Amino acid sequence: MAALDQLIDALRRLPGVGPKSAQRMAYHLLLNDRSGAQALAATLSQALSRVQTCARCHGFSEDPVCGVCSDTRRDPGLLAVVESPADQAVIERSGSYKGYYFVLGGRVSPIEGRGPRDIGAEALLHRATDGQVREVILATSFTAEGEATAYLLGEALKAQGLLVTRLARGVPVGSELEFVDLGTLAHAFADRR
Amino acid sequence: MAALDQLIDALRRLPGVGPKSAQRMAYHLLLNDRSGAQALAATLSQALSRVQTCARCHGFSEDPVCGVCSDTRRDPGLLAVVESPADQAVIERSGSYKGYYFVLGGRVSPIEGRGPRDIGAEALLHRATDGQVREVILATSFTAEGEATAYLLGEALKAQGLLVTRLARGVPVGSELEFVDLGTLAHAFADRR
Repeated sequence: MAALDQLIDALRRLPGVGPKSAQRMAYHLLLNDRSGAQALAATLSQALSRVQTCARCHGFSEDPVCGVCSDTRRDPGLLAVVESPADQAVIERSGSYKGYYFVLGGRVSPIEGRGPRDIGAEALLHRATDGQVREVILATSFTAEGEATAYLLGEALKAQGLLVTRLARGVPVGSELEFVDLGTLAHAFADRR
Repeated sequence: MAALDQLIDALRRLPGVGPKSAQRMAYHLLLNDRSGAQALAATLSQALSRVQTCARCHGFSEDPVCGVCSDTRRDPGLLAVVESPADQAVIERSGSYKGYYFVLGGRVSPIEGRGPRDIGAEALLHRATDGQVREVILATSFTAEGEATAYLLGEALKAQGLLVTRLARGVPVGSELEFVDLGTLAHAFADRR
């Protein structure tokens, strides 16, 4: 059946969904949850037409400028640099940050041939040198690629005379010391306070 | 953002997708695979409008009667009873069966309060007593509920004077005897040939 096979192919494009799960999902939607299928089709179309990029931070937004960027009660001297809208969302949920954001287009990757220009380094430099930003907080991942991204952007930002900081590395809240990896433990000792 | 949150909620209705994966899928689609999102929305709508139930076997079909049921080269004396369109599809792919099908609406489940009537026992009896069917092959699962379904339907079909068979139980092709469970091994001995 063409329509069923095409649906299975489309479901396989979801991250983490292989041929077996895609088939299971398609049968489930058509057999047991047609209203769920309807809701998924409708919300997909809606999100595609409504969710765009914020002109200021390049995160997701339903308006030309997003809710965070248009919130005037935030500190204009602070700019957090993140790799993706998902990272921005998790920081917002933590409620621990009251400055503005700049969302990169991922992280640099020599293997995939992605350099600072490809993830928006120029737009970041432009944004960070608006005369209001005092401190740029590099909130990229603590992986090899995330660290490389932070290093390269940090050098360029420092050259503009900006204060550049990095999120603290240390023992995660709720973890038992016994199971913390050694690199994290070394950082937690070095940065003790 | 309303549109993004609604999409995440809709993705959570897919089987095996929790809140974390739903979020990851939504961000992935909007950030990296908008054409995939478009394809998913389109194929969902298309499948919902085109894929209906075959009037004869109650499996999936894009026409009033499905391709299998309208194939006149099949043996009208054989009727395989399966639990779902997915089971019908896997039997078709095996290429080992050349009769017709009757697709139940699941299996009986005392826990969920689902009896033979709820899965279409009456329609099956009507279909099986068309005067052409000689043998009804009960191809339900070899689980407790699948066995109960086969037993209940089998008794009703035998009462109509029909020959009722069940798929053979035995050692799966490609398995090492050492790792076959004991119930399967006992059946494989009893049904040796």
